[in-house]
Amino acid sequence: MSMNAFGTNFRFTSFGESHGAVIGGVIDGCLSAVVVDFDFLQNEMKRRRTAQSEFASQRTESDEVIFLSGIFEGKTTGAPIAFIIENENARSVDYENFKNIFRPSHADFTYFKKYGIRDFRGGGRSSARETAARVVAGAFAKMILREKGIYINAFTSQIGSYKISVPIEEIDFSTIEKSPVRCPQADLADEMLDFLKKIKEQGDSIGGTVTCVVSGLCAGIGEPIFDKLQARLAAAMLSIPAVHGFDYGIGFEGVTQTGSEQNDIFISKNGKILTATNNSGGIQGGISNGMPVYFRVLFKPASSIGQRQQTVDIQGNATEIKIDGRHDVCLVPRAVPVVEAMTAITLADFILAKI
Amino acid sequence: MSMNAFGTNFRFTSFGESHGAVIGGVIDGCLSAVVVDFDFLQNEMKRRRTAQSEFASQRTESDEVIFLSGIFEGKTTGAPIAFIIENENARSVDYENFKNIFRPSHADFTYFKKYGIRDFRGGGRSSARETAARVVAGAFAKMILREKGIYINAFTSQIGSYKISVPIEEIDFSTIEKSPVRCPQADLADEMLDFLKKIKEQGDSIGGTVTCVVSGLCAGIGEPIFDKLQARLAAAMLSIPAVHGFDYGIGFEGVTQTGSEQNDIFISKNGKILTATNNSGGIQGGISNGMPVYFRVLFKPASSIGQRQQTVDIQGNATEIKIDGRHDVCLVPRAVPVVEAMTAITLADFILAKI
Amino acid sequence: MSMNAFGTNFRFTSFGESHGAVIGGVIDGCLSAVVVDFDFLQNEMKRRRTAQSEFASQRTESDEVIFLSGIFEGKTTGAPIAFIIENENARSVDYENFKNIFRPSHADFTYFKKYGIRDFRGGGRSSARETAARVVAGAFAKMILREKGIYINAFTSQIGSYKISVPIEEIDFSTIEKSPVRCPQADLADEMLDFLKKIKEQGDSIGGTVTCVVSGLCAGIGEPIFDKLQARLAAAMLSIPAVHGFDYGIGFEGVTQTGSEQNDIFISKNGKILTATNNSGGIQGGISNGMPVYFRVLFKPASSIGQRQQTVDIQGNATEIKIDGRHDVCLVPRAVPVVEAMTAITLADFILAKI
Amino acid sequence: MSMNAFGTNFRFTSFGESHGAVIGGVIDGCLSAVVVDFDFLQNEMKRRRTAQSEFASQRTESDEVIFLSGIFEGKTTGAPIAFIIENENARSVDYENFKNIFRPSHADFTYFKKYGIRDFRGGGRSSARETAARVVAGAFAKMILREKGIYINAFTSQIGSYKISVPIEEIDFSTIEKSPVRCPQADLADEMLDFLKKIKEQGDSIGGTVTCVVSGLCAGIGEPIFDKLQARLAAAMLSIPAVHGFDYGIGFEGVTQTGSEQNDIFISKNGKILTATNNSGGIQGGISNGMPVYFRVLFKPASSIGQRQQTVDIQGNATEIKIDGRHDVCLVPRAVPVVEAMTAITLADFILAKI
Repeated sequence: MSMNAFGTNFRFTSFGESHGAVIGGVIDGCLSAVVVDFDFLQNEMKRRRTAQSEFASQRTESDEVIFLSGIFEGKTTGAPIAFIIENENARSVDYENFKNIFRPSHADFTYFKKYGIRDFRGGGRSSARETAARVVAGAFAKMILREKGIYINAFTSQIGSYKISVPIEEIDFSTIEKSPVRCPQADLADEMLDFLKKIKEQGDSIGGTVTCVVSGLCAGIGEPIFDKLQARLAAAMLSIPAVHGFDYGIGFEGVTQTGSEQNDIFISKNGKILTATNNSGGIQGGISNGMPVYFRVLFKPASSIGQRQQTVDIQGNATEIKIDGRHDVCLVPRAVPVVEAMTAITLADFILAKI
Repeated sequence: MSMNAFGTNFRFTSFGESHGAVIGGVIDGCLSAVVVDFDFLQNEMKRRRTAQSEFASQRTESDEVIFLSGIFEGKTTGAPIAFIIENENARSVDYENFKNIFRPSHADFTYFKKYGIRDFRGGGRSSARETAARVVAGAFAKMILREKGIYINAFTSQIGSYKISVPIEEIDFSTIEKSPVRCPQADLADEMLDFLKKIKEQGDSIGGTVTCVVSGLCAGIGEPIFDKLQARLAAAMLSIPAVHGFDYGIGFEGVTQTGSEQNDIFISKNGKILTATNNSGGIQGGISNGMPVYFRVLFKPASSIGQRQQTVDIQGNATEIKIDGRHDVCLVPRAVPVVEAMTAITLADFILAKI
Repeated sequence: MSMNAFGTNFRFTSFGESHGAVIGGVIDGCLSAVVVDFDFLQNEMKRRRTAQSEFASQRTESDEVIFLSGIFEGKTTGAPIAFIIENENARSVDYENFKNIFRPSHADFTYFKKYGIRDFRGGGRSSARETAARVVAGAFAKMILREKGIYINAFTSQIGSYKISVPIEEIDFSTIEKSPVRCPQADLADEMLDFLKKIKEQGDSIGGTVTCVVSGLCAGIGEPIFDKLQARLAAAMLSIPAVHGFDYGIGFEGVTQTGSEQNDIFISKNGKILTATNNSGGIQGGISNGMPVYFRVLFKPASSIGQRQQTVDIQGNATEIKIDGRHDVCLVPRAVPVVEAMTAITLADFILAKI
Repeated sequence: MSMNAFGTNFRFTSFGESHGAVIGGVIDGCLSAVVVDFDFLQNEMKRRRTAQSEFASQRTESDEVIFLSGIFEGKTTGAPIAFIIENENARSVDYENFKNIFRPSHADFTYFKKYGIRDFRGGGRSSARETAARVVAGAFAKMILREKGIYINAFTSQIGSYKISVPIEEIDFSTIEKSPVRCPQADLADEMLDFLKKIKEQGDSIGGTVTCVVSGLCAGIGEPIFDKLQARLAAAMLSIPAVHGFDYGIGFEGVTQTGSEQNDIFISKNGKILTATNNSGGIQGGISNGMPVYFRVLFKPASSIGQRQQTVDIQGNATEIKIDGRHDVCLVPRAVPVVEAMTAITLADFILAKI
């Protein structure tokens, strides 16, 4: 079991609780002599930050990454890169109220059952705060991948029943960051915003999907049988808090199609073998085929809501809970850089194993 | 990278090509002194066998498992259990026609690009034939799990647009095997059969979903952050040939629900903490909560169809291909025991790590 | 490859360079709800500290361990335990002289060849400073092991030609710390001290051996074929800087014995099966047999000496080097707690996998 | 825990008991498109075979390797290579006598304590028979390594008190196979033979050492901190039955040397940086430095001897045991190809991870 580490060749170990002093991580296996692009890193951190939108939880998180090892004179040395991010706003006192209560659909109950001990502050390890460390590791993975011409772009493809209708191949990735909901279809983005306002007013939350596209990946990446590219990507995505589903290529949308409709015909273009359609999502038999790899990640609605909910306390007595203050109305826009980060880590792990 | 092995504590290594002499596997880490239930094993093999339905490919596969090691006087010894299953019907000659042609949406092209060599016989490693070895390993995992009161039941929940409407908690698992389509909703099963006949007449194929339910799993199974129960299950499922999607709990079906609708309220019943609903699919924060664990696995339509298709040969020249003989009209019913097997292997890996 | 991590179930990841800001580590898989014995931990750190003896290098190292995660209200939570130790005396300027010179028998050359970049400050990752983080992880492993009645005691068994003659089973472990050389044979300890003074005057260094004894380990620990107890212990020991050899049981000393002399006869005592002798070192077939496990670890003389040595610079030009200031006359006494720590980590990894 | 598998990138899984139907293995991660040199493979098997010398146990073992997968038209395909070797002479009946008795210094007792079940036939998994599978995997590793100019030569360097005196760098590897004891120092080889005759007459056994030299390994192989080249080699060697010790470079022989005597001075020769001596055994800081890598492996005397020995039965009652028939007088000569095989597997695992 890898537990708090992901990957073999490019291995990311995560540590820290949402309301401890810091969160952080260790990257083991990063190429040496990579010039660290600190501006790029800080921009990735900024993209993930809570405060970006009015629909995120109230907490203002720090995004300064402090490196502890593995970088010398601005370059990676090949030694493990350890880093921390301080938790500025770790108000444990806020959580005293929930000390003996299990919040519905949160991990309070299962952590308590598993570990027999309870760090009740803000979800501890299961909080989305932990994903900030993933974004740091993902930024290093992206630095390695872009040297090989591999680029990763994720975006919000659905919130509630508001679903993107532009085909993948027609999406202009440069428009993603133009809306706080990170949906590249401008009219839909506005509708999503209005919808989120309504959900917020109701003290409720809503889920949706992130779609991620990998461009520039050569054919041959993926290791049958059990480290198929889609299997590793699925494991990476399902490790993100609140993720409940994954599909790649046409996926669940294509369940009514027949084989003759869904098969991707091979064609030859400028001496290169391509497929005419890309329902396979760039993967066949667990190995990339040179077409763009794309997949979809389902996020459930955030469990913390502003409404009063029934639940039980640690003794099993019925009680009620109401979480005050601002909560995450929708996790999806904020998760976009996290999906990208985990994709980058997964791909770097494959790429660095290739001889 | 684990490549052809899955699991850490209960580790299954798979080997063999669909048209080589044998397929087989090695189970490392099985408990010692387990009385091997050979009848149960053969029944599992029979459930997976191709010939079961008129909608499967023509090949009649052997299902006799020959054990090479790890069993002494009918019990496991703690040593690795190696086994083989002979490929009786390995007609390589049939595949000569495809020697230089890439079949659409098959793994021919990607294997060739990755390995620079081509074992063109019947898909080699990427064939569904390989899953027979998984069923053997799964049977051993099930033997261990049932000793702990853990049972796994999978069934066909959708074929094309025919989708089960009975709620999970009302399904009678004993009816699953009564229909060749393995759908426990009798009227729907008949409709599915009629639909498959039509697809077969058209020389086409169709996909669908398998739903899998784990009963009797105690709270506390799953290892945050990166070996969450759902992450390991997703990786297991996405390693199965033709699987393109995974969700757990209410999943994609619940994308339009708000948090207040989807949250599972904790209740206390007979001194035990349960949830009133189970939209979480028995998992919170990556750890089982004691409720039934359930998830859904999407299978694309089989790539081999009876219709003539355009493609290219190894030099990139446009050509056509038509696969003669019977092909898999729908992979879903046959995949039911494979989904169960991979679920069992995944759970045994967790259970055997628990102290 | 695990690279900077050791273990599967109790996994220790190490980071930090000897002259960076900190060294540290992450312990993943530690049991939850363990009361952390901070006094014990600090005592272990003190045992390892450089300044303990007049024969160690001049540097005064900090030994304050700062915990970043995984501990709540004095107990482990089951989450990864990250920690750092600040490097107080990181005088990079001292190393400017060696910036372009390869020190003989140091890792300067091989790190440069491998990584194509040079962190020339004090050996970087290859420095013995890194072992402080191992002692922290070892202290947690020891806390788990002692709950199960398992104790680890290491001592200096040889320095140069001065070799212990007391049989293992007669050694009084409580005397080990009475001499700065950590040899429990009092007269020999004095001779070793005199010898080290002479070596120091010569500006030279000397090696020796540490012997480690594990008491209270039950029969059945060790995983054939490739995770034999001795194989994991050897890997752990050979990962310590300057270690060049390992043997267990009677080892190299028994090379002239015949089988009839070396075999350990089984006897029965108070209803328990024991061996009359323990030449096997408590291990047979890779599995502990319930007798004390013991092994020996060889340390080469420290590469840094006070004498002028010939070498080459980065361009291959012949040059000379002389390392000013105090250096390690003998690594052996200081390595005693490090050998114990790696032994504890190795055993905890086995113990936590046992069901 | 890897248990019965070794390696990450070139992974060898071993299965089979000494008196079951077969022993065998699976090689996962072998390069594709390697032309399999079957003559070389059979010669490696022949080198390991028991019957080679009059000092080995009576059993005549098969050495025909049957491949089950991973090879197509004489080349590796990149799929796992599974193979078996039949156990021709599996006379379980011979072992009925020992069914309830623990043989001294054998693994009977520890396997029984660990697994609670006893496969009493000939040592089961702990038998040296299992090493035949390692030689198969080693042959594939050697095929990959020799393409990169890396060669491995092992030889008998000591039996009892008969110890080689020729320096490593003067040994002519082509003479190793000229004597059945595999010692390249001709006069010593004859003395060893005479000595073994005497030991055999006494119904006794004797141990010794194998030295292994790797030529042609470039600088940069080895992964600090925990996958140092010497740590992986030590783990590989200590996994071989009857191995009790490991050292590299000058090792235990140099324990009385000072740093000024043992340090390897860097020199420049024909534009290449070398060391004037090679006491470091070609490794510094866990990474190869381009000089020959060499190490020594200690084998204890075989536990099976022809003399009557005291022991206990499964109930703890005192009894006697005498193993009839020919036993292994000395394991060392026969272990030479096994040491080479495990070295090759270890190095292939590193080499295939290098980008």
